[in-house]
Amino acid sequence: MTSSEFLISPIIAGAVGLVVALFFYFRVKSQPEGNETMNRIAGYIREGAMAFLVREYKVLAIYAVVVGAALAYALGALAAASFILGAFLSLLAGFFGMKAATFANVRTTQAASTGSKSNALKVALDGGAVMGLAVAGLGLIGLGGLFWYFHADSSVGIVLHSFAVGASSIALFARIGGGIYTKAADVGADIAGKVIEGIPEDDPRNPGVIADNVGDNVGDVAGMGADIYESMVAAIVSAMAIALTIPQEKMAGILTDGTDPVMQRAASVILPLVLSALGMIISVIVIFVARAFSGAKPATVLRTSLMIPPILLTAAAAAFLPMWGISQGVTVALAAGAFGGALIGLITEYYTAAKPIRIVAEANLTGPATGVIRGLAVGMESTAIPMIIVVIAAYIADQALGLYGIAMAAVGMLAGTAVVMTVDAYGPIADNAGGISEMSGLGKEVRAITDELDAVGNTTAAIGKGFAIGSAILTVLALFSAFNMEVNHTREMAGKAAMSLDLTSSGVLIGILLGSILPLLVGSTTMTAVGRAAGRIVQEIARQFKEIPGLLQGKAEPQPAKIVDIATSAALFEMILPGMIAVLAPVLVGFILGPQALAGMLAGALAVGATMSLFMANAGGAWDNAKKFIEKGGLPGHPKGSDAHKAAVVGDTVGDPFKDTSGPGIAILIKVMSVVSLLIATLIANIG
Amino acid sequence: MTSSEFLISPIIAGAVGLVVALFFYFRVKSQPEGNETMNRIAGYIREGAMAFLVREYKVLAIYAVVVGAALAYALGALAAASFILGAFLSLLAGFFGMKAATFANVRTTQAASTGSKSNALKVALDGGAVMGLAVAGLGLIGLGGLFWYFHADSSVGIVLHSFAVGASSIALFARIGGGIYTKAADVGADIAGKVIEGIPEDDPRNPGVIADNVGDNVGDVAGMGADIYESMVAAIVSAMAIALTIPQEKMAGILTDGTDPVMQRAASVILPLVLSALGMIISVIVIFVARAFSGAKPATVLRTSLMIPPILLTAAAAAFLPMWGISQGVTVALAAGAFGGALIGLITEYYTAAKPIRIVAEANLTGPATGVIRGLAVGMESTAIPMIIVVIAAYIADQALGLYGIAMAAVGMLAGTAVVMTVDAYGPIADNAGGISEMSGLGKEVRAITDELDAVGNTTAAIGKGFAIGSAILTVLALFSAFNMEVNHTREMAGKAAMSLDLTSSGVLIGILLGSILPLLVGSTTMTAVGRAAGRIVQEIARQFKEIPGLLQGKAEPQPAKIVDIATSAALFEMILPGMIAVLAPVLVGFILGPQALAGMLAGALAVGATMSLFMANAGGAWDNAKKFIEKGGLPGHPKGSDAHKAAVVGDTVGDPFKDTSGPGIAILIKVMSVVSLLIATLIANIG
Repeated sequence: MTSSEFLISPIIAGAVGLVVALFFYFRVKSQPEGNETMNRIAGYIREGAMAFLVREYKVLAIYAVVVGAALAYALGALAAASFILGAFLSLLAGFFGMKAATFANVRTTQAASTGSKSNALKVALDGGAVMGLAVAGLGLIGLGGLFWYFHADSSVGIVLHSFAVGASSIALFARIGGGIYTKAADVGADIAGKVIEGIPEDDPRNPGVIADNVGDNVGDVAGMGADIYESMVAAIVSAMAIALTIPQEKMAGILTDGTDPVMQRAASVILPLVLSALGMIISVIVIFVARAFSGAKPATVLRTSLMIPPILLTAAAAAFLPMWGISQGVTVALAAGAFGGALIGLITEYYTAAKPIRIVAEANLTGPATGVIRGLAVGMESTAIPMIIVVIAAYIADQALGLYGIAMAAVGMLAGTAVVMTVDAYGPIADNAGGISEMSGLGKEVRAITDELDAVGNTTAAIGKGFAIGSAILTVLALFSAFNMEVNHTREMAGKAAMSLDLTSSGVLIGILLGSILPLLVGSTTMTAVGRAAGRIVQEIARQFKEIPGLLQGKAEPQPAKIVDIATSAALFEMILPGMIAVLAPVLVGFILGPQALAGMLAGALAVGATMSLFMANAGGAWDNAKKFIEKGGLPGHPKGSDAHKAAVVGDTVGDPFKDTSGPGIAILIKVMSVVSLLIATLIANIG
Repeated sequence: MTSSEFLISPIIAGAVGLVVALFFYFRVKSQPEGNETMNRIAGYIREGAMAFLVREYKVLAIYAVVVGAALAYALGALAAASFILGAFLSLLAGFFGMKAATFANVRTTQAASTGSKSNALKVALDGGAVMGLAVAGLGLIGLGGLFWYFHADSSVGIVLHSFAVGASSIALFARIGGGIYTKAADVGADIAGKVIEGIPEDDPRNPGVIADNVGDNVGDVAGMGADIYESMVAAIVSAMAIALTIPQEKMAGILTDGTDPVMQRAASVILPLVLSALGMIISVIVIFVARAFSGAKPATVLRTSLMIPPILLTAAAAAFLPMWGISQGVTVALAAGAFGGALIGLITEYYTAAKPIRIVAEANLTGPATGVIRGLAVGMESTAIPMIIVVIAAYIADQALGLYGIAMAAVGMLAGTAVVMTVDAYGPIADNAGGISEMSGLGKEVRAITDELDAVGNTTAAIGKGFAIGSAILTVLALFSAFNMEVNHTREMAGKAAMSLDLTSSGVLIGILLGSILPLLVGSTTMTAVGRAAGRIVQEIARQFKEIPGLLQGKAEPQPAKIVDIATSAALFEMILPGMIAVLAPVLVGFILGPQALAGMLAGALAVGATMSLFMANAGGAWDNAKKFIEKGGLPGHPKGSDAHKAAVVGDTVGDPFKDTSGPGIAILIKVMSVVSLLIATLIANIG
């Protein structure tokens, strides 16, 4: 390819992704949508989800105006515009994906009601693919477009960083707000319905069930989408930033045909975009192949889809890079990340599905306390291997290409973003499909199909979550390096010596200790938020059961909109404090204590944040699946409703905010802090 | 004072402490020991505790021989001998203190049975003072003696480090083994007795109650004593090590009368010992004053005792140091540590006693899950202020005296060791006294007195725990600096450049990520160990209730020795894995990846370990006290036995291993890793 072809390739790949996304969108919409009851329920869910998005957008608009103005003041109008673009494209992907998901859920139920598991799987997958392709496509078009326009401009660094901060900001609020919403509604509906009134899950009499189903979309579709979008953007931007600012002598030798430093740097800068474009094309192929096999076992289809992209990516890189005169060292770094991500996903699955689940389930035989203790222990243990995998991947990539290699490993891990997100968004669609079938009273056979699809979704959700956190850690490592280079680059320009990042300097140590607090503060605030919001939902449900005559007898309609409204308000209000911690901590420490302490803070937050988010996500997954294991008869003599099962429900409830609010919230915290630090690097470089 | 007077002062102060300890020991023994039933029960407890110690000593003897041989091979016979001495003195303090505690418990009950709260308080305090003074006294005599003998020898560094490794090893195993024992017995007895059979706490029919009371001694007397002993030793050794190896140009100006570098260094090396000796004398005074006020409210007496030493130490340092020609910068560093420690203790008390407890208690109104979630959130939140206090103390000390100042702050925080340990050991004595009064059927009025003493013990235990973790963090910071200096000192000798500890170097980053896993692995293995051991105890208790006719009716005697035996075997077996992680991780990483990665590993483990241990200890304390808050009628309409109370018991049980096994275990992990690293620093300095 020529250099202008390279420049345009991410935009083309992104456009391909969007066109395919549109195709799936209309395909989903064209499917039969079932009977009136189903449609009414699906309508509630869709309206609730959209109402949340609209109100969230209003809050985010205020945030965008404030931060945009600050950016315009500190870094110029271009930075502000790029920030807004990064945020806007994230919202667009979320909007589009959530619309598709809330069309796909009821159509999946309808397909299941005709008895075709294969069709139901296809509809749910198509719905998820809209989100997956939109996320990756808009990310590529945004970054590719900006780089195409500004690549020769000196402001290109600031433009890219600002775009990433826009993406991060939305991810932060969508993930935390969505996480609070989904778990407040889930916990609230469960406590009020299952525990207090003793009615089954997804019972149509429970006014909280709609909000629970809305929550799946708000948290696992929109929240997860924004999270993955930002990981992909941040990985690409960090690689580009390192390529732009790395000192000549440390530059990785990625060109095979010579050592012209200008060409070398130019190739290093564009390569992350080009390889992500390659990943996009591979993802589209994988999605179509997966659909073609929709007659196979759902679990096999989805798990295979997640494992294929690393293989194809490595093969494609190995084949194409030499043609472009690029060293195979790049293939090594990419493969280290891509396979590392897949491995982390499998390890996460092990800890939330295999032997550990049985151990946690059995611990519930002596009561909820021992069940909770075992789940915590499994979660803690589960952090080791993923961290070691990240270390090995980073080490291989570093050996191959230095710090730039670590960023390329992150790019490799996220090259299959569209597939990962497709499978992730599939989960809540299948979950919703089950809820709709239950609420519409479609009977056991339909429910059996949706239950199987849902169970597969739970497994793939675990894989996706491990993958998301793994890629976050690698991305943060890359961003961390990019931040330090940017600082030293700026200092060099000002004729100052490089910043000392010696571990024994007091600035670094102070930063590490301060940084170590932040993940726990975000964990604390998000868990408290879920508890508080769930409490309000329980009260409102209790009020409805008390004040609406005939509701418990099924003779009157509940008022789900009120619950949706409470969950929405609570989530939007409660996301502010943890969100502010993430955005303001690096700004305050950077401007008051300087870049040295900020670097330490990022390292401390990384150490604690990486382990805590893995711990919380996996402990939550383990409790959830231990409960399901008991429900499926895993402990003979202790069926659903037994004391052991009730004990397992306690663990599951503790795990709800662990795995879907705090764990992902902490992962995003460390990403946001790193991206914000990178953005302000030039402003604080000369402090201290 | 002359220099030889300085040299001898720690030995004299240590001897004073030991003499006073002996005085208290015999005073306790001379108190009336009550009726036959009381004595029989106390005898069981004493025998159980001693049996544990003896069996633990056998296991530790094997460990000591293996490690001693390795040390003799790698660092010479002197290192091995010093290691053995450091370990032996720790065991001696533990043996002596535990004997005193198991004499004091029943005599406290007896004093309470005469209706004198003041006498009961005095006996319990005297019993605790034996442990407090033995710990500080033997530590001072050991270190002071070694330094007196070897101060002019070139091996002085290795001798001191080996002593610290001996102290650390015992602390590690005593704390983890003791922690597993105490919580396995506690949880096991509670589940089998309170939950399954429905009999009250400390009921004499429950065969596990004796083991539970043994556990208090094994964990909170012997385990805590070894922990504090090693903190004090490690703080002093790290300050001395920094003083011995710090490059000339970075040396703190601690002499007021000149800049003779040899004098300067000599004074810096001896000062930590001299100031600890001063702390010992102050502690003895405080203990006697506290006894004199035993008629006052127990809570006031104990809390005031903990807050006085920092004031006296600062005043004494400010008065004496100028006379010795030492700069007041030393006073500043000492005071920063001493007051920082007291503040952390108060913050810990807040989070485990005040408003947070009410919030956790109220969360139990909607079930155990919400109670557990709130406790976790409180624990996470509670890490922030203590960490910030450590940062501020370290910053002040660093400004005053550089890295040496940070070590002196740790010395200052631990100068009141004898008082802190006295108050800490008081707790389990009061707790035991309550248990003995219940098991002997002494009636409500006696129990009311022991209950009040026990409640105060719980509060001071929280203060002591916060203090122990705070001092651990500061000590690790100092050890970390000492390690790096030792490495660079060795490299300089070998003509090598100083090790690069740049945060962006791949070795450091890999180390940080690997280090971040270790606290969670120790957390996981210790919690699993407690769960497993408790399960075996529950089975044995159930067997006894089933197979011993008339036991439940109170017509037959239980077999407590079997439970004691199970708890002992389980604790000794289960402590091996977490213990090995702590000792081997730094050795493996140091020898395989080199000192750079090891430094990173220590930093990563510090960030995660400091926050995790605070989190776990405080969450556990919050659940414990929330349960007690409900039992005292804190939630009107929800008395003991209500659903809310049952929910709180779940949190309390989860909190048991959190606060008494895993939290302290993680704190000791980071200390042991740092001490081991310091010891092997010269061996690995030239790797990589």
